[in-house]
Amino acid sequence: MNTATLLISCPDQKGITATIANFIYKNNGNIEHADQHIDANSNTFFMRIEWSLKGFIIPKKEIAPQFSKVAKKFNMNWSLYFSDDIPKIAIFVSKATYCLYDLLLKHEQDYFSGKIALIISNHDKASTIAKRFGIKFYHYPKNNANKRETEKKELKLLQEEGIELIVLAHYLQIFTKQFTQKYPNSIINIHHSFLPAFAGSNPYRQAYQRGVKIIGATSHYITEKLDSGPIIEHDVIRVDHRRRLLDLKREGQEIEKMVLNRAVRWHLERKILVYGNKTVIFD
Amino acid sequence: MNTATLLISCPDQKGITATIANFIYKNNGNIEHADQHIDANSNTFFMRIEWSLKGFIIPKKEIAPQFSKVAKKFNMNWSLYFSDDIPKIAIFVSKATYCLYDLLLKHEQDYFSGKIALIISNHDKASTIAKRFGIKFYHYPKNNANKRETEKKELKLLQEEGIELIVLAHYLQIFTKQFTQKYPNSIINIHHSFLPAFAGSNPYRQAYQRGVKIIGATSHYITEKLDSGPIIEHDVIRVDHRRRLLDLKREGQEIEKMVLNRAVRWHLERKILVYGNKTVIFD
Amino acid sequence: MNTATLLISCPDQKGITATIANFIYKNNGNIEHADQHIDANSNTFFMRIEWSLKGFIIPKKEIAPQFSKVAKKFNMNWSLYFSDDIPKIAIFVSKATYCLYDLLLKHEQDYFSGKIALIISNHDKASTIAKRFGIKFYHYPKNNANKRETEKKELKLLQEEGIELIVLAHYLQIFTKQFTQKYPNSIINIHHSFLPAFAGSNPYRQAYQRGVKIIGATSHYITEKLDSGPIIEHDVIRVDHRRRLLDLKREGQEIEKMVLNRAVRWHLERKILVYGNKTVIFD
Amino acid sequence: MNTATLLISCPDQKGITATIANFIYKNNGNIEHADQHIDANSNTFFMRIEWSLKGFIIPKKEIAPQFSKVAKKFNMNWSLYFSDDIPKIAIFVSKATYCLYDLLLKHEQDYFSGKIALIISNHDKASTIAKRFGIKFYHYPKNNANKRETEKKELKLLQEEGIELIVLAHYLQIFTKQFTQKYPNSIINIHHSFLPAFAGSNPYRQAYQRGVKIIGATSHYITEKLDSGPIIEHDVIRVDHRRRLLDLKREGQEIEKMVLNRAVRWHLERKILVYGNKTVIFD
Repeated sequence: MNTATLLISCPDQKGITATIANFIYKNNGNIEHADQHIDANSNTFFMRIEWSLKGFIIPKKEIAPQFSKVAKKFNMNWSLYFSDDIPKIAIFVSKATYCLYDLLLKHEQDYFSGKIALIISNHDKASTIAKRFGIKFYHYPKNNANKRETEKKELKLLQEEGIELIVLAHYLQIFTKQFTQKYPNSIINIHHSFLPAFAGSNPYRQAYQRGVKIIGATSHYITEKLDSGPIIEHDVIRVDHRRRLLDLKREGQEIEKMVLNRAVRWHLERKILVYGNKTVIFD
Repeated sequence: MNTATLLISCPDQKGITATIANFIYKNNGNIEHADQHIDANSNTFFMRIEWSLKGFIIPKKEIAPQFSKVAKKFNMNWSLYFSDDIPKIAIFVSKATYCLYDLLLKHEQDYFSGKIALIISNHDKASTIAKRFGIKFYHYPKNNANKRETEKKELKLLQEEGIELIVLAHYLQIFTKQFTQKYPNSIINIHHSFLPAFAGSNPYRQAYQRGVKIIGATSHYITEKLDSGPIIEHDVIRVDHRRRLLDLKREGQEIEKMVLNRAVRWHLERKILVYGNKTVIFD
Repeated sequence: MNTATLLISCPDQKGITATIANFIYKNNGNIEHADQHIDANSNTFFMRIEWSLKGFIIPKKEIAPQFSKVAKKFNMNWSLYFSDDIPKIAIFVSKATYCLYDLLLKHEQDYFSGKIALIISNHDKASTIAKRFGIKFYHYPKNNANKRETEKKELKLLQEEGIELIVLAHYLQIFTKQFTQKYPNSIINIHHSFLPAFAGSNPYRQAYQRGVKIIGATSHYITEKLDSGPIIEHDVIRVDHRRRLLDLKREGQEIEKMVLNRAVRWHLERKILVYGNKTVIFD
Repeated sequence: MNTATLLISCPDQKGITATIANFIYKNNGNIEHADQHIDANSNTFFMRIEWSLKGFIIPKKEIAPQFSKVAKKFNMNWSLYFSDDIPKIAIFVSKATYCLYDLLLKHEQDYFSGKIALIISNHDKASTIAKRFGIKFYHYPKNNANKRETEKKELKLLQEEGIELIVLAHYLQIFTKQFTQKYPNSIINIHHSFLPAFAGSNPYRQAYQRGVKIIGATSHYITEKLDSGPIIEHDVIRVDHRRRLLDLKREGQEIEKMVLNRAVRWHLERKILVYGNKTVIFD
């Protein structure tokens, strides 16, 4: 079933839902999902609405221009997606490959409404895995001296390939502003702690030393400020004093995979709306 | 803020959302919350929509009659609630009082959009607690011989007091059909297991004997069939071989309280819609 | 059943377990629980061992002196507890009383191997609750000017009453070093966040603003450094964008109660051993 | 580090721990882990004790005969394991391969104290995966007519290969008594529900129809009675009315993998002791 999905935020006022629902109904669309939320503090209206394009009167290309008139009236931030436009994904990875493997397996089993088009790594290790799954692999070593040049190469490649979503599946290089600004709310990272606890490097070691009884993982969008972007998903697992640092890492990996997988899936299903430094997850 | 809330289910078709949203908008209402869901298997549309009555053109008493015209068109099952109609609650309890206590404390702290009007017990034990909190207490002993007669007394009292919601906070008597049919989807029970596992009596003992590693609790609406009504909420807690039966009971109690509390709160906030033997929980 | 419990830590070496087990066996004791742990990093041995005193040859008063000879040999830190010595507890509370209530209810139902002897508050609000439960209540208002003087009064009272464990059930005053040093590893605090995230004041507000998807609570021993003492227990609950700040507080309270309750119970059952800034929880 | 591990159960009495600890100490062993548990209902003593063989006086082959004298005195059920005896594992699988994949990946990363020696399947589908990972693959189709014959072939192969642990990673054939009796407490199955709820076939469908709010998975040892053997581990995940049957399956898979992985790991680390129809998991 082909559908269109609108993600909308705007100042709250009367008549928004009616106007949007009428736009769909009058053009012969059937709403499949609709969820709205009002943030009372900021008086902001949020909506995700998805409707079937079967029998929809407006042709696909004309929907955005026509909806933009509605949008203007309410001063909306909005984006429109079509289920038959398959987003292309690039995965960045360093040496730890368990998240990469998990994404590739799920991709192979059609869990994602997107296509993993390529893998970029600053190491060569993942090339074998890429080969196993038949995904293009690019080995771009990176250091402080060549970082800006390498990022330019990466950006060029991503644009040529039409990449829409970047997933950092344990990529241990920090991007410069030049890179992150090109992909606002489109770079998903997995951090192996329950942010904001244990930001920065070696979060499991930090957790171990602090003696916490629960460890976690966080998926979030990358912004310029390290480990501080909008949080998409968390999950946690209970640990105890018997766990060595190695055990925290092993048990944490299971959580990391789930938390990253959910973030990627939700992004591709257009269920995430970023406002300020937070996310609304339409479920 | 005074609001009206509609809970709706009907066969899915085009235009439902538009029609409802128009009904509210044209009468100058502002939607505060709206959530809808379509069950694709049965092609059923579900909606919860809540709007502010501030400036709403239709007077409170006229809203239902006027909406019924919309409802007929779409063959809706619907119910309308107003936030300033405070539902009255009766609690039934036997000897275990921890759930009762939890409800009374939360009631005292205004957590519930409802008023606990009375407590009925087949034992005298809870009378002291009722007194502490200033709630009317009725001691109705019950056995197989007097059950039908006692239920009649109870029903009479509930009707005189205008009770809308009955909460079984560990009430160890089974009601007859004569009783349950008077309060469809309005009697909430707490069962101290993760239903459908360990239905019936002594669920902790059953769990202990089976050697499970997680125990749970379930809140559900009472139907004629024991422990088989629509499930509202579950929660669980991890246990291990070191836990004696007594420990399961104690740790389980914390879960029971949370699970019952959530069910009562959601019911009072009109967030639960029953269809078939399942619940839609609008969040 | 009367039991003795030893909590032991010392450098690991051969023969520790054998020596301790022999000490108990030769004096005709039956071990009820024994658990040991070795921290490989620091080569430290930890043990909790509990045995029945029924038929034990050494009289209660002589056990410590006799065991001290064993202890010296292995350079042990150790403490010895008897199940029939009921520890006395003082609760400190400010205005929020839900944790206090929970502790008092559980105390009334004999969940704790200890006796709540008194409640101290910088406000008068909790006096009614103290009365309901028949617990002595002391109203000691506190400000920066009178803090040291008030703490002296408090310490005097605690010593006169023979208090062994202090529970801060939402007590919003920070103690000085003069106070905390008198009760090392004996003051349990509940912090309403998943420490080390959101230390300091208004953790729910901090969590709300950061947009986390899971909130938590932490019980820990108080040290001189705010919110940095050894963590005893954590728990968490999932939240989403629909939750207002008030909702986070309400849902978090359920977690806070459980997490504080567990810490108090484990402390009283002599299941917690502090080493460095961490805890070993013998289960 | 080479270690020996004893798993022991016997009627509780004085002196067991002392005797075992002395046996190790006098032969110059250093205890690395020791945990014991007493089931008060049945007066049964359980222990797991692991010690370093570095400098241990008794040669490996002589440990069992010598310990058997101790064991006889206390009427022990016991088993002795050595960390340098690597158990061999066979995986049985049908068409769903996500659990198989997870086990193979973890095996490749040395998570298990065991060696996956071969894969047996009633379908050919998993042969490609087996090849990818370089594991021997046997395709043994099975139906009611050839079941007993096929099981004989399987048993022969397992014995020839010296298989000690059998993991059913979604194997949809039920074994006969002839098979299961050869591997008591040595066949681990993953059931995709929170047993005892939804035993039998199609557990996700059953869960979906019952309208539960939490789904789970269970790993357990196989006995003659379907889905009724000793439970090793459970885990759960929250679902809601928006989840279709397909979603339950997908989200449940993540839980299944974790629950099976833990059971296999614990079995191989000799942390599981079965008594009656329950397990003691030494942690």
